[in-house]
Formats: sequence, C-alpha cells, structure tokens
Amino acid sequence: MASSSSSAFVDVAIVGVGLVGSSVIKQLLTVPSLNPILRIVLLQNSKKALIKPNGLPTSAASTWANDLTSSQDAALAPADLVSHLQSHRSQAAKHVVVVDNTSSQVIADAYPSFLNAGFSVVTPNKKAFSASSSLYASILSAIKSKSSSSTPAIERPLIYQESTVGAGLPIIGTLNDLVGTGDQVRKIEGVFSGTFSYIFNNYSTVKGSQVGFSQVVRVAKENGYTEPHPGDDLSGSDVARKLAILARLLPDQFDPKSSLPEGYASVDTKSLTPEPLQDVTDPTEYVNRLPDFDADFDKLRKQAFEQGQVLRYVGVIDVEKKVIKASLESYPFSHPFASALSGSDNIVAFHTERYANAPLIVQGAGAGADVTAMGVVADLRRVSERRAV
Amino acid sequence: MASSSSSAFVDVAIVGVGLVGSSVIKQLLTVPSLNPILRIVLLQNSKKALIKPNGLPTSAASTWANDLTSSQDAALAPADLVSHLQSHRSQAAKHVVVVDNTSSQVIADAYPSFLNAGFSVVTPNKKAFSASSSLYASILSAIKSKSSSSTPAIERPLIYQESTVGAGLPIIGTLNDLVGTGDQVRKIEGVFSGTFSYIFNNYSTVKGSQVGFSQVVRVAKENGYTEPHPGDDLSGSDVARKLAILARLLPDQFDPKSSLPEGYASVDTKSLTPEPLQDVTDPTEYVNRLPDFDADFDKLRKQAFEQGQVLRYVGVIDVEKKVIKASLESYPFSHPFASALSGSDNIVAFHTERYANAPLIVQGAGAGADVTAMGVVADLRRVSERRAV
Repeated sequence: MASSSSSAFVDVAIVGVGLVGSSVIKQLLTVPSLNPILRIVLLQNSKKALIKPNGLPTSAASTWANDLTSSQDAALAPADLVSHLQSHRSQAAKHVVVVDNTSSQVIADAYPSFLNAGFSVVTPNKKAFSASSSLYASILSAIKSKSSSSTPAIERPLIYQESTVGAGLPIIGTLNDLVGTGDQVRKIEGVFSGTFSYIFNNYSTVKGSQVGFSQVVRVAKENGYTEPHPGDDLSGSDVARKLAILARLLPDQFDPKSSLPEGYASVDTKSLTPEPLQDVTDPTEYVNRLPDFDADFDKLRKQAFEQGQVLRYVGVIDVEKKVIKASLESYPFSHPFASALSGSDNIVAFHTERYANAPLIVQGAGAGADVTAMGVVADLRRVSERRAV
Repeated sequence: MASSSSSAFVDVAIVGVGLVGSSVIKQLLTVPSLNPILRIVLLQNSKKALIKPNGLPTSAASTWANDLTSSQDAALAPADLVSHLQSHRSQAAKHVVVVDNTSSQVIADAYPSFLNAGFSVVTPNKKAFSASSSLYASILSAIKSKSSSSTPAIERPLIYQESTVGAGLPIIGTLNDLVGTGDQVRKIEGVFSGTFSYIFNNYSTVKGSQVGFSQVVRVAKENGYTEPHPGDDLSGSDVARKLAILARLLPDQFDPKSSLPEGYASVDTKSLTPEPLQDVTDPTEYVNRLPDFDADFDKLRKQAFEQGQVLRYVGVIDVEKKVIKASLESYPFSHPFASALSGSDNIVAFHTERYANAPLIVQGAGAGADVTAMGVVADLRRVSERRAV
C-alpha cells in the first residue's frame, strides 16, 4: 500500500548534479508525495554549492541549475561537507542523507566519514562497494559503531545502493531479501552491462547474425551505447565491479576481509580487447583496428551457433564452486539470456535453494539517467520511512 | 548492505499455521539475523492458540506444533485477538504485527480493527485487497487516521502485502517504487497464475505441442498444480484478484471508490470452463467431461500457431485504455511470455514512461510455501526496520 502522508522529513545533501543528479532533483521536487518528506538542503557540482537550510522549494525545479551557477558558495570538500551538515543537523534536528551521484573515488572514500558523522548514504556510485576490502570494511564498521541504542536515532546512518547494479531494477533489494530471510544463494548469473547486452544481442542471435564484431562495436559507439573509449566497456571492468558489489552482499562465503581483497580487480575478468590493442588509448584508432580481429570473434560465434547457442558476456557468482568471473559464455537458444533479451537490457538470474527449479529473474533497462535516479529516489524513500522525524 | 544488529524488536502474532505459516515460523526462528528482532508472541490455527508473551525461543522451531496441539488456550476471534494484543503491548512496550497466513475473508475483514488498534498487518492473503472497495477504503482510512504525530510511534500501523501477488517475487515492492518515484505506469501485463502458466506452457508451445487441453489439465491436477477442483483455477478468479490488488496500488486512474467497486468481481474475467460444465461441482466429473471441448481449444491454438504465436492466460491492466482484464491472449514466439517461460513460473512486465523501450520484467516461481513465506518475512523485516524499539 502507499505510505501515508506525514509532516516528518529528512534532509538531503546532493553531491553531483549531472544527468543522474538532475533527474534525482527533478523527481524529488516534482513528485507530490516526495517533496514534503525529502528536503534538499544542499546540492553541489565540482565547482559550486547551493545551500538552502530550509530546503529547496518545489518552484526551484526550473531554477536550481541557474541558481547553482550564480552561487557565491564554492563546492565543499568532503571534510567541509561533514562539518557543514553537522552544523545544519544541530539546528534542523533532522536526519541527514548524503546522495552521491558522482562516479568519484574521492567521494566514495569519504563514505566512512559521512557514516561516522551519522549521515545516511544513498548512491548509484559503484566505487565504494567495488574497491578494496579495506574501504568496504570501514563502511561496515562505521555503520555498526553508530547503530547502537547509545546513538540518538537521527544520527544512526543507513546505506542504500540499489542503483549500483542495474540502475532502478530491483536487484540489490531482491538479493538482500533473499539473504535476509535465510535463502541459500547458489548462483547469480546475468548480463550486467547494457553495452555488452547491445553488442551481443546484435552480434550473436538465434537467427544467425552475420554482422562483424567490429561493426557492431562501431555502431554501438556511434549511438552512445559505449564509453567514449569502447575499450573501457570491452575490458569487462564494469561487470567485475557489479560482481564485487553483489558478492559482498552474500553471507559467509564472500567475507570482504578474505574474499576480493582488491575488490573488482580481484574478479576473474575476461577482456574482449584483443591483446595487440590493449594499449591503444585513441578511441578512433581502436575502432579502426578492431576489424583485424573479427575472424577470431566469428570463430567463437560459429562454434556456439553450431551447438544451438549464442554468445553472451556475463557475470557469474557461483557460490558452490566459489567462482566469481566476468566472461564470454554460450547459452542455448531457449535460454532467457538468448531468446528473451533485446536492446541493451540487463538480465539477472538468482538461483537459490528456494528458487531451485527455475531462477528468480529480473530484466529491463540497466542504465539511463531516469531509471538510475529512480533507484536513488526509491532508496531515499526507504531512508525517510526509517529516519524521518 | 546488510542491516546491523540491534537489540530493538517488534512482536509478531501469527494467525494461520498451515504450510505457509509453518514456513514463516521456521524462517523467523532459524535465521540468526531475524530471531533477535522479530519475536513471535502468539500463534494460532482455527482451534488453538499458543501464547508466549516473552517470545518463542529458537528451540521452539521443532516443538511449537506439538505445543500448539496441547495448548489449553482456544484460538482467539479477531475482537479477542485485538484485546489480547493491546494488553500485551501495554506491558511489552513493543510494536505489534499481525501476520495473516490464512485465506480467510473473516480475518481479512478484521484488518481495519487491527490497524485501528495500531497493529501492523503483513499477509499473503489476497482477500482484503481484492474484495469490495468498502473494505479497502476502511483499510486506507485506518492507516491514515493512525499515522499522525499525535499517535505514539509504536502504535502507528503499517501494511505490507508482497506475497499477495507472485509470492516472494518483487512485484508489489517494484510497483510501489515505480509509482512512489513518479513513474507513469502505462500497462502491467503478466502470467499471474502458476496453474495457467503450467497448463499453457505445455499446451501451446513454439514447437507446436499437440497434446489435448483436457489431458494437460488432468496431469496438472494429478501433480497438485491445481486446486482440488480445477474449475476454481480455470475460472480466472485468482488472476482477477491479483489484478484488483495491483490496480488499487496505481494512483488516480484506479481510485478504489470509483473503480472496481466489487473488487475482483468487477474485473473483466474470461473463464476457461466450458459453459456446459459451469455447474459441475464434482472434480472427477469435470475432468472426465473436459475432453468434449478439446476441439474448441485446439482451434484457438491452431489459429495462434499459424500466426507464429502461442496462447497464454494473462492478466492485463492497461492504464491508458482503462482496461483491466483476465483473458486468453496470443503472443509471438519471440515474446518473453512465449519463449522464456517454463514450468509454472509467473512473469510480470511493467510498461512505464521510464521503462518505455522495453518493460521491467520479473519472473520466477509465483507459488509455494517457502517462497510465499519469504515474501512475508521480508515484509516483516521492513516493519521491524521502521518500528523496532
């Protein structure tokens, strides 16, 4: 059921106002049920900050960007942000949430300081959860130390990260529900990259596509489906980051202290950049030389097709075999990854003790500003449900 | 991230200890992270009650059923349950949750009294949400009246109902996140019945199944995939109930007061029971006479197949056309409902403004005690996160 209206609210500080951040602000200011509950008291990009102790009014939906540009306040470094928000909280007497819409490692590294100050963190930024186990352990430790009954309720931090995997798709929440109710996860398998999804949904099809691999990559780049340098996608590191995030949400088997010490860098990751192109930093040269390797990809595609299979670049966490890998695999034509996937959709299958006969599957757009912002705002609602005063 | 440990808890009263209720109790008592937070203070079946003001110990996981059988306490009628739990709360000073694991309309009718007493309700029982709009309005009204700041925090009720549609699959939660963040739902479409899923996944396939409809129904009944009387499935009323539940979670377009006044009975529902069998109450006679109508179904299957389509019994909420219907429809071989569905899985596609190019899809087992209990227990965790003291 819809939650009821209330005069209680929490205060939101937004770091990063690019495409995702702008969409977060738009949702918070224009959805009637949200703006009385989630109050934006600060927003900043890398240069300027806009500080509104009483909250941005809904009318700011069309003016905040100009107001930020003309603001006299410089962006606050993490330590200054902590001081400012502590001072704000002491006056406003509200719980504070920091929303990190950047992809910055520097901001991610500051999460322990935000949490230790009693601020919640909501973010689509993968960096904090997929980096070294020491940062991850610091985050867990900060939450634990501030969760006891000796801490005032408005200073007990929460952390939510739905949009770090599959944007607004219910992936992190579903995994937390499975684990939290005692299900045993056996395997998580999925197409976690919209770029790889697009590439292989076009390159390797049940009908037997004949297009060249390099041509698909070229079209993907031209349509904006890749990073500026396609090699940043083909390296598989984005998939490896998502696997590190999910693996760390599993109990026991993947203790952050013993498993994945270097985070995503500890994941067994297959790069699809051909060896001779590993050091090509110019995207144009990279794309122009890629056709030299089409025959290698064609051979793999042909082998799979002759066995009634297609190629998909997937991430796999096999709990029973203790394997975490980002790799190119083959799937039968009738498999959901083969037949039911289209466009640049993500798909994730949870194989568990309870979902043993057939996995629990979530599928849909896994990238894009509005759906990423939706995951962030849904997480903010959860914080407000638990911390609004 | 996993929630941290805490000494705060909420008190749980469980009504209905059949397959689902037993699995709920097992999860609550055996998952280490749950049993310090969610304390079972009462459980009852239709005859007896087991009352434990200090909570069932984890050791009761193997003994509660015997203890219930030998209990001297009779099951409490709803009004007595309210009195008992109010008295309990006044001594325990904890928030109370009533878990209804029955399929009883009588218990469902009591939800307003539970909520007005300040108890949360968590349930897989569809009856309250799919019945008349007057009951639904009473539920909404009770929550609203008890949510103001004048009500003590431990007496503010919540209601969670994830397992009313698709058991533990993230369907209700996903819809609430979409709506709550301002997305515009255009259409919800899905295979909501495990029984219909099994029947049509076998009867109408992309490879051109030739088995008779009556034969598939007979096998489904023999394997326990149908109600004792298969006509109770083929009527479509279970799908209609799920559509009423989902439609009422949508804003505006489906105001409970103006739309679906009689709940599921107001949904346009296609029964697959042939007209001459409508009044056959004996399941054996029903199954034995069903072959007389195989030719009618074969004709529909053949028509669909010749157009490259399969038959699926689906539920559709088309917001733009203002249509809510449970009906037999055709889908192309490449559609996820056709190619990617197997066994008795449910599948739901959310077509929204943000998920416009391709829908957000959730798929997996939509029935079974353990996955239904999982949805209930995940909802209980949400209540504990918001109300534990």
